[in-house]
Amino acid sequence: MKTVIDLNADAGESFGRWKLGDDAALLPQVSSVNVACGWHAGDPGTMRRSVELAVSNGVALGAHPGFPDLAGFGRRAMAMSPAEAADACLYQYGALRAFAAEAGTHVAHVKPHGALYGLTLRDPDVAAAVAGSVATADPDVLLVLLAGPTAQGVIDAGHRVAREAFADLDYDDNGHIIIEPVPEAKDPEVCAQQAIDVLNGGVTSVNGKAIDVDADTICLHGDRPNSPDIARAIRARFDEHGVRTAAMHDVVASRY
Amino acid sequence: MKTVIDLNADAGESFGRWKLGDDAALLPQVSSVNVACGWHAGDPGTMRRSVELAVSNGVALGAHPGFPDLAGFGRRAMAMSPAEAADACLYQYGALRAFAAEAGTHVAHVKPHGALYGLTLRDPDVAAAVAGSVATADPDVLLVLLAGPTAQGVIDAGHRVAREAFADLDYDDNGHIIIEPVPEAKDPEVCAQQAIDVLNGGVTSVNGKAIDVDADTICLHGDRPNSPDIARAIRARFDEHGVRTAAMHDVVASRY
Amino acid sequence: MKTVIDLNADAGESFGRWKLGDDAALLPQVSSVNVACGWHAGDPGTMRRSVELAVSNGVALGAHPGFPDLAGFGRRAMAMSPAEAADACLYQYGALRAFAAEAGTHVAHVKPHGALYGLTLRDPDVAAAVAGSVATADPDVLLVLLAGPTAQGVIDAGHRVAREAFADLDYDDNGHIIIEPVPEAKDPEVCAQQAIDVLNGGVTSVNGKAIDVDADTICLHGDRPNSPDIARAIRARFDEHGVRTAAMHDVVASRY
Amino acid sequence: MKTVIDLNADAGESFGRWKLGDDAALLPQVSSVNVACGWHAGDPGTMRRSVELAVSNGVALGAHPGFPDLAGFGRRAMAMSPAEAADACLYQYGALRAFAAEAGTHVAHVKPHGALYGLTLRDPDVAAAVAGSVATADPDVLLVLLAGPTAQGVIDAGHRVAREAFADLDYDDNGHIIIEPVPEAKDPEVCAQQAIDVLNGGVTSVNGKAIDVDADTICLHGDRPNSPDIARAIRARFDEHGVRTAAMHDVVASRY
Repeated sequence: MKTVIDLNADAGESFGRWKLGDDAALLPQVSSVNVACGWHAGDPGTMRRSVELAVSNGVALGAHPGFPDLAGFGRRAMAMSPAEAADACLYQYGALRAFAAEAGTHVAHVKPHGALYGLTLRDPDVAAAVAGSVATADPDVLLVLLAGPTAQGVIDAGHRVAREAFADLDYDDNGHIIIEPVPEAKDPEVCAQQAIDVLNGGVTSVNGKAIDVDADTICLHGDRPNSPDIARAIRARFDEHGVRTAAMHDVVASRY
Repeated sequence: MKTVIDLNADAGESFGRWKLGDDAALLPQVSSVNVACGWHAGDPGTMRRSVELAVSNGVALGAHPGFPDLAGFGRRAMAMSPAEAADACLYQYGALRAFAAEAGTHVAHVKPHGALYGLTLRDPDVAAAVAGSVATADPDVLLVLLAGPTAQGVIDAGHRVAREAFADLDYDDNGHIIIEPVPEAKDPEVCAQQAIDVLNGGVTSVNGKAIDVDADTICLHGDRPNSPDIARAIRARFDEHGVRTAAMHDVVASRY
Repeated sequence: MKTVIDLNADAGESFGRWKLGDDAALLPQVSSVNVACGWHAGDPGTMRRSVELAVSNGVALGAHPGFPDLAGFGRRAMAMSPAEAADACLYQYGALRAFAAEAGTHVAHVKPHGALYGLTLRDPDVAAAVAGSVATADPDVLLVLLAGPTAQGVIDAGHRVAREAFADLDYDDNGHIIIEPVPEAKDPEVCAQQAIDVLNGGVTSVNGKAIDVDADTICLHGDRPNSPDIARAIRARFDEHGVRTAAMHDVVASRY
Repeated sequence: MKTVIDLNADAGESFGRWKLGDDAALLPQVSSVNVACGWHAGDPGTMRRSVELAVSNGVALGAHPGFPDLAGFGRRAMAMSPAEAADACLYQYGALRAFAAEAGTHVAHVKPHGALYGLTLRDPDVAAAVAGSVATADPDVLLVLLAGPTAQGVIDAGHRVAREAFADLDYDDNGHIIIEPVPEAKDPEVCAQQAIDVLNGGVTSVNGKAIDVDADTICLHGDRPNSPDIARAIRARFDEHGVRTAAMHDVVASRY
């Protein structure tokens, strides 16, 4: 069983007049945060405040670029070429990096959001293009990809990757996560058990199939209604098992 | 008469399927270029190509942030607080900076576009907030403001500013430029003469009033139909008078 | 004292993933509803559901067009020409009308939102252009404008107008409403008293000045946190005074 | 060989500062026009002018709704549910209808644009939902779909459909059109021949396969650089063969 893992949360997903998630309650529970960058959520003022919240909570800051689809919250698939996807990620990463610089911190990782994450998972050329693009902007930045074959391919190509697993999403028999357009509350103890399963190297699909998982970081969704409760349940279970959380850079340090 | 001046052009103002301006013809004539950053014009792919064009022409690269108003091309006034305007500029500056990093160059200056430029001119608090914000992201970056009292105020507050004058726009009696929503072709020789007037320290308003101008850089609009012709006429006149062009950082070097 | 008045509420101001307001609680309290049309809030699915909610509550349906500014929720002033403002209103009105047709109802009124409402108040040419434009699309539709000189001018020009007053906003000494970017909760009894003041023909400005008000409809903001409470307090006070609510078309019927 | 056919063109695809296509040259050559409705192209002012141009040219006016993707010009596939696609079409149709009402005309047909057209072609549930939605708004409106099995299914379900073929696009072996993200100029005589082939009941795929086509209308793309030339070549060939053009409502009149 792994004894060190990163816990990451999507945050900063308000937009202008509209509020979403309870980032102030969630961030103390995690070691990394992925901040929306304006395309699927997160206006500049929200980005500024989210960066400040990451700094004040001492968590690693990441960019969370999405498709240009506010109405769909970036959860509707869009056809983008590898070059378009890489440019989309680079643009949003750069925007967040300016706010990070202003706050005296840096962007440690990039994690595509929603259907853009799904596209990197399904199209290795997209994953490679995104990885190459963020690496030119900062060779130290980590790309967060679902633990599995695509992530392994990007690692094998020489890029820096943090392999992700999910405590609050179901897996299908291919090892792909099943994304809900609008997340509902989930039983915190079920999620906590799935987090422990990940540390033990595997989860069970919705059809009962065993899925091998070798992950560096576990994700929590900030827009799930009870996400702070889920985070606390996971942290409590980690304490029971002597599992320590650390920012994903520390977790993958042995690989790079 | 000044014998060294920067010549800057707005460029990269295409958007997706829509093309605008002839940047490839314009850039060889100027020493600095201001690239649109996605809010009033300029999608990520256009930004990438514009940065590459700046590099291949050896001109200084700047960000050209605008209001979030594609339909109005950023030329309709919007009410933004100083903090909102600063965040808007920082976001767009950061996005361009990532493409600059990828291309192995850097963003040397920031010049607000259209009605956002007008807002910095009319509201000294906005100008100060924008200047402070870009300075935290990069203390060397220059903010381009209309040569005049607002620019002087920002300089006096300790910020790095390039003072701008216009060869292809008229001035009113307050020394403010008169922005056309859709620029028409202008007589290149008239623009060239106005450029020489700027070097001599003053222009004449539309009502015949003398306006003092102490400028570091002269702007050309890439979306004026005959902007390459205007640029060539100005360069020819500069050659006659022995005027040399240089990137704005070189022009202002004695001040910083 | 007037004994019949319309009570209107802004609603349908959610957008995609983001929810705002408790329309289901608010609509039973009012006689007219103004539904956001996609530019400042309200995606097509939200519009469809809002129209259905208006029908099921038996309230008159109106369009609530705003500036194209999701990030600012349509509450930041924008410079639009009279023709641009009229086109913006016509576009959004038309979009809502299609959903109304689908639901077997019609759009009875048009009320500009936020800073676009402010623009119609300050620029009589904008008010006239908007009134003329909606009248060509449907001669029976009412334009809702702040009770005051601009509304009177539009009425005198022969257009159909419902004159509006506010129970939950303060007035300045010019009789203009003071718009809050993000409404806070307000004392329901204070709002109820202001509603009664409106029925008595006048309100008091923030500086104590008496403002004459001759109104056909009173507005409640759906995005104020306790707007259903305010609505109930007003309805209770109306009951005490024997005031009846009716859709604005009925209230203005004697004029047209 | 058919002797009567509609010729339709996509138009109104400028956006704000950006111009696209030569609608004034194209419209005299066609009998129907499909006007962009603001989501992939076409701001309200452009819509107003496009409607006026349709009226002054005496061509049938249609709505041309697209995906909410200005940067991709509506030519990137997006995942939309049938309900989302229907709402998107209804919204845009309604917006155009208001401008039509203002100009004293009506919207005769609805033709989805680009990748949204592709989605209706590939997903019969989407086609059915869109057909049902526009029919509730106006039972006389025609939905334009690619001549083929999906269109036939919608017809069989009792909806009013105009079956479309293409003179300026290639077909694949499944009878699907091959959409170019950015159309290039094409040989007008080749397009004219393909138009004649359509009248004769079939086209040849890029691999030489015979494709049966039973069409009511033939499309021309307004954003192809030489689209007016192509239109003139087709009209000349029609004259040679005694083929008459008529608005699609007249062509399908025998069916409804």
